[in-house]
Amino acid sequence: MRTSIDVHISEVGPRDGLQSVSATMPTADKCRWIDALAAAGLREIEVGSFVPAKLLPQMADVAAVVRHALTLPGLRVMALVPNRRGAEAALTAGVHKLTLPVSASEAHSLANVRKTSAQMVEELRSVVALRNEVAPGVPVEVGLSTAFGCTLQGAVAEDDVIRLALACVEVGVDEVGLSDTTGMAHPAQVRRLFTRLRAALGEHAGAAHMHNTRGLGLANCLAAYDVGVRSFDSSLGGLGGCPYAPGASGNVVTEDLVFMFEAMGVSTGIDLQQLFAAREPLKAGLPGEPVYGMTPEAGLPRGWLA
Amino acid sequence: MRTSIDVHISEVGPRDGLQSVSATMPTADKCRWIDALAAAGLREIEVGSFVPAKLLPQMADVAAVVRHALTLPGLRVMALVPNRRGAEAALTAGVHKLTLPVSASEAHSLANVRKTSAQMVEELRSVVALRNEVAPGVPVEVGLSTAFGCTLQGAVAEDDVIRLALACVEVGVDEVGLSDTTGMAHPAQVRRLFTRLRAALGEHAGAAHMHNTRGLGLANCLAAYDVGVRSFDSSLGGLGGCPYAPGASGNVVTEDLVFMFEAMGVSTGIDLQQLFAAREPLKAGLPGEPVYGMTPEAGLPRGWLA
Repeated sequence: MRTSIDVHISEVGPRDGLQSVSATMPTADKCRWIDALAAAGLREIEVGSFVPAKLLPQMADVAAVVRHALTLPGLRVMALVPNRRGAEAALTAGVHKLTLPVSASEAHSLANVRKTSAQMVEELRSVVALRNEVAPGVPVEVGLSTAFGCTLQGAVAEDDVIRLALACVEVGVDEVGLSDTTGMAHPAQVRRLFTRLRAALGEHAGAAHMHNTRGLGLANCLAAYDVGVRSFDSSLGGLGGCPYAPGASGNVVTEDLVFMFEAMGVSTGIDLQQLFAAREPLKAGLPGEPVYGMTPEAGLPRGWLA
Repeated sequence: MRTSIDVHISEVGPRDGLQSVSATMPTADKCRWIDALAAAGLREIEVGSFVPAKLLPQMADVAAVVRHALTLPGLRVMALVPNRRGAEAALTAGVHKLTLPVSASEAHSLANVRKTSAQMVEELRSVVALRNEVAPGVPVEVGLSTAFGCTLQGAVAEDDVIRLALACVEVGVDEVGLSDTTGMAHPAQVRRLFTRLRAALGEHAGAAHMHNTRGLGLANCLAAYDVGVRSFDSSLGGLGGCPYAPGASGNVVTEDLVFMFEAMGVSTGIDLQQLFAAREPLKAGLPGEPVYGMTPEAGLPRGWLA
C-alpha cells in the first residue's frame, strides 16, 4: 500500500462547476457530493465562492456548505473570494484556504471584476493584511486567469503573466497558479510558462488549472507535470462546461486526470472507483445536467489494480 | 509561408471509422469525403480495407473508392489488408501503400484473424514477397494492435511487442507502428515503448495510433511526439467510436490532433478551416452518426492565424 502522494488534485467542481450552470444544487445535495469527493480521497475541495447572492444565487448557501465541509476530517476546505469583503465572510465561516482570481488580461479583468490587474493586486494586499490579522494560518492562493490567452484581448504576453505573478507574491500571496480560462493553452506554451513561473516564484508557484475546451486539457496537464508542476485543479464530470460547445467541457475532468496519473504510476491518493461513485450525488443534485468523463464511461481497463 | 511539414498525419476515418459503424456510407459520399480531406492537406488517407464483403459490407466498394482516390494529385492512397489475398486485390486496384494489423496479444490475434502472431508474421512474409514481385515501390506497414494492453489478455509484455516488431521488419515490412487498440495506453508507457521501438527498429519505426477511450488520446500523442515520433494516425470526427461509451470516441480526433500540433508551432501541412469543412460530407454520408471533436465545436481561438 502506497501512502505518499506524488501529485495534489484540487477539486473545483462545487465552486467552478456549480457557478457555471444555471440550475442551483440544493444545499443537502452539495453536502452529499462533497462527502463523496472527500471519501474518494480528495484532500482539497473548493466548496463555493463568497459573492453576493444576487450575482450568483447558486452560491447563496456557501456558508452552510463550508460549515458542513469543515466537519470532514482531513479535508482542506477552500473558497473563492473576489475581494476583501468576500474574504471577511469566508474567514468568518472558517475556511482553510482562500483563492482569488486575478486576470492576466486587462480586458478580462475589467469585464470580470471591473478592476484593472493593478487594482486587483491592491485588493490582494488588503486581503493578505486581513488574513494576517484574523487568520494567519490560512493560505491565500491566486489563480491567474487568462494566463494563456484571452477571448477578449487575444494573446497575453508571457512577460505580463510573470510580472503579475511576482506582484502577487510581493503583496504576500502564498501561491500563484496559472489558469487556461478560455481553453487556448497548448503543451509547448504550458511548459514554457510554468518553467518561467517556477523559476521566478520558487515555492510560491502554484497549480495548473486547465480547461478542455479544445480537447487539450490532459495533454496540457501532462506538459505541466513534465516541467515539475505537482498541483492540479479539476472538476468532477468536467462540470463547468462551455455553454456554446456541446461536449466541450470547460474544466479538466477529475476522473480522467486521476486515471492518467494513476496509470502512469503517479500517486494521487484518490480511489478511482469511489471517485466514479461521487458522480451519483452530482447527477442527483443537478438532474439533466451533462456530466462528462471518458474513463467512467469506458470503465477501468482489464487488470487495473486499485 | 511554411512549406515544410514537421509531423505526418495519416487519416484513417474512411477505413477504421467507417468499418466501426453499422451504417454503410454510399460510395459517392465516401469519395466526396476523401476529396475534402485531401483538399484540407491530408497527404495520406487509409481509404478502405480489402476484406470479404460478407464480413464487412461497409467496405464492399473499396476498389471503386481506391480508383477515385488515385485521381487526387499528391495523395498517398493506403488500404488495410488482413492477408495475402487482400494484398493481391489492393495491389491490383493500385494502392500506394498497404497496412496490415498484427496483434501483440495472442488472445486478440486469435479472436481477430484466427491466427497466432507467429502465423501472421508468416502471412506478412508472403505479402512482402508478393509486393516485391508485382509492386516493388509500394511500402508495407504494420500496425501492432493491442501493443499497450488487451481487453482479452490484460497486460501485454513490452518485450513481446518489441520482439514482434523486429520479426515484422525481418520479413521485409517497411514500417511498424504501435496501436492502442483498446485505449489502455498512458503517457509514461507510450514514451517507454516508442523509445524502445525506435532504438530497436531505427528508420522502420512507424506511427502512433492512439485511441481516446479514456480521454488520453492527445496526451499519448504528445508523449509519443516527445520521444521523436513524427507520424500519427487519427480519424476525422473521432469516427470509430466505442459503441459502449457515449462520447468515448475510439480514434484520436484529427481536428484536435492537428490543432494541438499547429498551436505548438509544429507544422502538419493541414488547413484547420478546410479540415472542419470536411466534417460536412462525413455527416451527410452518415446521417445520425455522432461526430466528435472539441476544436471544431469550440472554434479556433481568437487571433488564430491559419
